[in-house]
Amino acid sequence: MSGNLLDALPVDLPEELFTVLAEADGVRVERIVSNGQASPEGFWYDQEWAELVLLVAGAAGLEMEGEAVGVLVPGDWLVIPAHARHRVAWTDPDRPTVWLAVHYRG
Amino acid sequence: MSGNLLDALPVDLPEELFTVLAEADGVRVERIVSNGQASPEGFWYDQEWAELVLLVAGAAGLEMEGEAVGVLVPGDWLVIPAHARHRVAWTDPDRPTVWLAVHYRG
Repeated sequence: MSGNLLDALPVDLPEELFTVLAEADGVRVERIVSNGQASPEGFWYDQEWAELVLLVAGAAGLEMEGEAVGVLVPGDWLVIPAHARHRVAWTDPDRPTVWLAVHYRG
Repeated sequence: MSGNLLDALPVDLPEELFTVLAEADGVRVERIVSNGQASPEGFWYDQEWAELVLLVAGAAGLEMEGEAVGVLVPGDWLVIPAHARHRVAWTDPDRPTVWLAVHYRG
């Protein structure tokens, strides 16, 4: 179980691509590749588990409910607590945006 | 709880720097910064938990027992199963090497 997060990046996919890298009781690690996608207007993620998300490549705008959109650049990480409503306001339209997400029972 | 993995990188530290980013039952996420350090000759890590490790910046040689040293470059990740003996053969002597490690109960 190994690879490079930046290998074989899909481009122009209509949907974001989710790939599970590791999974065990109470934890799931996945790569997410975005190509300009954003959450639908008015849509909020409301997750049962906490999530640590790291932006590996590209750029994105992440909106926590009630806050301004935060710009993420490579190396940026944050913890999204369980049930903290959030959405992806935008991702870079010109190149793939790669995320590492660690979902865990909070 | 947020930050950038590449911010405030220590240089010339005598020891590797470990910073816990998130922790919950059965999972611990940490940043590791190496400045040329390697595991002592003949030393092997033998961990109770599995570990997904991602090389974020720099370069490193990782040796799984009985295998040749594998070279890791940014974006490379691998899963080290619990009790899979391994060591860090080398890290880049000229710049910080930054790792994201996800330890989890395997």
